[in-house]
Amino acid sequence: MNRITYTVAKKPRQFWGCISGAGGPQARLTRPPSLQERCVAALARVERTDFLSPLCIGEVVHASAEITYTSKHSVEVQVNVTSENILTGVTKLTNKATLWYVPLSLEDVDRVLEVPPVVYSRQEQEQEGRKRYEAQKLERMETKWRNGDIVQPVLNPEPNTVSYSQSSLIHLVGPSDCTLHGFVHGGVTMKLMDDVAGIVATRHCKTNVVTASVDAINFHDKIKKGFIITISGRMTFTSNKSMEIEVLVDANPVLTNTPKRYRAASAFFTYVSLSQEGRSLPVPQLVPETEDEKKRFEEGKGRYLQMKAKRQGKAEPQP
Amino acid sequence: MNRITYTVAKKPRQFWGCISGAGGPQARLTRPPSLQERCVAALARVERTDFLSPLCIGEVVHASAEITYTSKHSVEVQVNVTSENILTGVTKLTNKATLWYVPLSLEDVDRVLEVPPVVYSRQEQEQEGRKRYEAQKLERMETKWRNGDIVQPVLNPEPNTVSYSQSSLIHLVGPSDCTLHGFVHGGVTMKLMDDVAGIVATRHCKTNVVTASVDAINFHDKIKKGFIITISGRMTFTSNKSMEIEVLVDANPVLTNTPKRYRAASAFFTYVSLSQEGRSLPVPQLVPETEDEKKRFEEGKGRYLQMKAKRQGKAEPQP
Amino acid sequence: MNRITYTVAKKPRQFWGCISGAGGPQARLTRPPSLQERCVAALARVERTDFLSPLCIGEVVHASAEITYTSKHSVEVQVNVTSENILTGVTKLTNKATLWYVPLSLEDVDRVLEVPPVVYSRQEQEQEGRKRYEAQKLERMETKWRNGDIVQPVLNPEPNTVSYSQSSLIHLVGPSDCTLHGFVHGGVTMKLMDDVAGIVATRHCKTNVVTASVDAINFHDKIKKGFIITISGRMTFTSNKSMEIEVLVDANPVLTNTPKRYRAASAFFTYVSLSQEGRSLPVPQLVPETEDEKKRFEEGKGRYLQMKAKRQGKAEPQP
Repeated sequence: MNRITYTVAKKPRQFWGCISGAGGPQARLTRPPSLQERCVAALARVERTDFLSPLCIGEVVHASAEITYTSKHSVEVQVNVTSENILTGVTKLTNKATLWYVPLSLEDVDRVLEVPPVVYSRQEQEQEGRKRYEAQKLERMETKWRNGDIVQPVLNPEPNTVSYSQSSLIHLVGPSDCTLHGFVHGGVTMKLMDDVAGIVATRHCKTNVVTASVDAINFHDKIKKGFIITISGRMTFTSNKSMEIEVLVDANPVLTNTPKRYRAASAFFTYVSLSQEGRSLPVPQLVPETEDEKKRFEEGKGRYLQMKAKRQGKAEPQP
Repeated sequence: MNRITYTVAKKPRQFWGCISGAGGPQARLTRPPSLQERCVAALARVERTDFLSPLCIGEVVHASAEITYTSKHSVEVQVNVTSENILTGVTKLTNKATLWYVPLSLEDVDRVLEVPPVVYSRQEQEQEGRKRYEAQKLERMETKWRNGDIVQPVLNPEPNTVSYSQSSLIHLVGPSDCTLHGFVHGGVTMKLMDDVAGIVATRHCKTNVVTASVDAINFHDKIKKGFIITISGRMTFTSNKSMEIEVLVDANPVLTNTPKRYRAASAFFTYVSLSQEGRSLPVPQLVPETEDEKKRFEEGKGRYLQMKAKRQGKAEPQP
Repeated sequence: MNRITYTVAKKPRQFWGCISGAGGPQARLTRPPSLQERCVAALARVERTDFLSPLCIGEVVHASAEITYTSKHSVEVQVNVTSENILTGVTKLTNKATLWYVPLSLEDVDRVLEVPPVVYSRQEQEQEGRKRYEAQKLERMETKWRNGDIVQPVLNPEPNTVSYSQSSLIHLVGPSDCTLHGFVHGGVTMKLMDDVAGIVATRHCKTNVVTASVDAINFHDKIKKGFIITISGRMTFTSNKSMEIEVLVDANPVLTNTPKRYRAASAFFTYVSLSQEGRSLPVPQLVPETEDEKKRFEEGKGRYLQMKAKRQGKAEPQP
């Protein structure tokens, strides 16, 4: 769960006159891609984010951001968040995040505008960026197919089962949840997702839990003021010391004439359980019951092993 | 005073596709009564509500709601709020509340729309509902007559008098106090009313005080964005261990061309005084001075004795 | 930094049907100068404000306000803020503030309306008011000339230099920061200014710091919803036991077709450093490096000595 306190950007990098005010992973970007047409930047995706160290009350947060790649219709923004204890002067990297924005026309928010190309200082930057762009595009499409599913309540579930800890939250999108143009802030959705994931994790292991990382969050569709959103979380996998929780966000445009519930966002959160002294504790093992739960458990295990291999690969680089 | 912390609906009952997001007694309901015309549901009345157990920080709140009766122009909604300590798994009923909503046309908010009739599972449900509907209608009209009165400041009042503890709060209704349609949230008004009642009770007995119950709250008229509201509280009655405080809400449409102050809502709050250990303390006796104060004291005594009899009647049901 | 908690006006003086809801120094005034045209009152200036005693959590705040002078196009409002500990009944004067408002037409916010003249109870009140009006008008113009300057980051600054503690905060003006008419609340800007000043002071002396006073704050120009504001603070002067911090607010209308950054507000904050027991501590001496820093240090010293002389003049009135 988030512990954001106080936002200060000491040395904000201004790139191209573009501004990206950032508060933890809740970065916002609003920029006109050209002088001809006003636009709003819609958050489309947040890449996998690791929470390296917690933010504490009273600390000053520094967030800096820069554009690292542009495709025809999207902008990649890299955000770095550091925390500073202003009494001791100690500074720590809190997290790094990569966000993808899509510019929408303010006259017609269903129309995506073209992004003026960024100028790279090195040739390879463009190639590396294009690789990242293609990879996330593929992943986005995969998630979209996975999205039929809904979390259903179960009566009298057994401890350690998926049903036992699954939780849902209902939220009416009010004016203060929204940007200037009446769409819900990406950061509001992300906070609610983290809230639900935290409840699921606490219910499962009855201890103090913290977010260790968030898998890529895909925003499949816009959510508008007045919509009802249902944020559901269910545990998918446990390793010895971590829990993976899938969070689904469904939106219901209740006030429109033809309300039709749709999947607006989804992500996997990884939580760890901490002792009073802040050391990580073993986690009760999840007991998948249905075929679907067993399938999701195996998929979660796959993601876990892949991340573990990646981390070890980084720690001991191959020749 | 409210201690609401965290809102989660685990198993929200969806009735007719109507949604009632609820946060403590601040339930909201927005539903289209027919597909032909969009509407907003205005909170008209909250029935007497007992606060059975406090909500503590970190607990998860479950609020569920269902429609229990419909008249031609109003909807009765029953809300149940339970709190769950997710570390221990202990669940407690926090309160039950009955709310009446009236659907207003979004094209013309002064026009009340017709409510499509609810389908009852048992015949008696409709009859019981109609009784509740008639009873509250009568009570609403009575309160309206009582509403001329204004709380006036008194210089150098004596301790334990009504003047000594009476308090007023002035609030400009801002955008974040309002629903999507620019009317103040019922929950915002109720919180301010409870705030004032809490100040009156604290001034009277100089101890830690908590809300024990709230009498029916009638919302006589809508309050819009930009209006100034004055929330006044005065003690009306004390028993050995409880205080009754009348709270009046007056609205002033300052920005309109013909501002005319009107009574927007009123209710009686019952507070108790608690020791450090949470046990209820005796309360200093109120000293009514004027004829009006003495009359209100007797009326308060009547309500107190009636509620006491009702509670005892429930505890020891007659043959 | 502000410690505002709870706002209650027990005996609000209503003057002319004008209402000024006040929350600490964040007073707001909205009044129609005539029945013919609706207007919004824009905060133009806050006179020097001393923080006489802190507000503590749980205390009740009483704010009262009255109009003390009117020029053709502006209104002077005097606000008194007292805090009351409702358990002990002890009341303290927290601060007094003088605010200048300018009425703008709601049909065209760039048009300043005429203010209907106030009726004075004594003849001298008008003359004294006119003196205050002329004095602040002169000072406003002087500040406007001083306003070219921008705070630039410096790499690896030495402790106790201006560069070492200087800080900037970037904020996107969202809907909840604004009044009903889409302009940022004066109180929101003032809070952000105090936040930055507090960070600068903490970085400089690594202790618990509190605001002792705020020099006149001039609001040079309106800030609208959707603008980006940059709030920068730099230390200008230190005496043995106090620090003066200059705070500059720059606004950038990013979403307009011709965004042009402008100075929206500026002020000098005086902070003191406190020990755990709340006693004032000596402050590390500021080391000005550049010519500009040395010039600002001397100007700050001038303001400090002038205020000191004024306070001593008040303490020992001359014959």
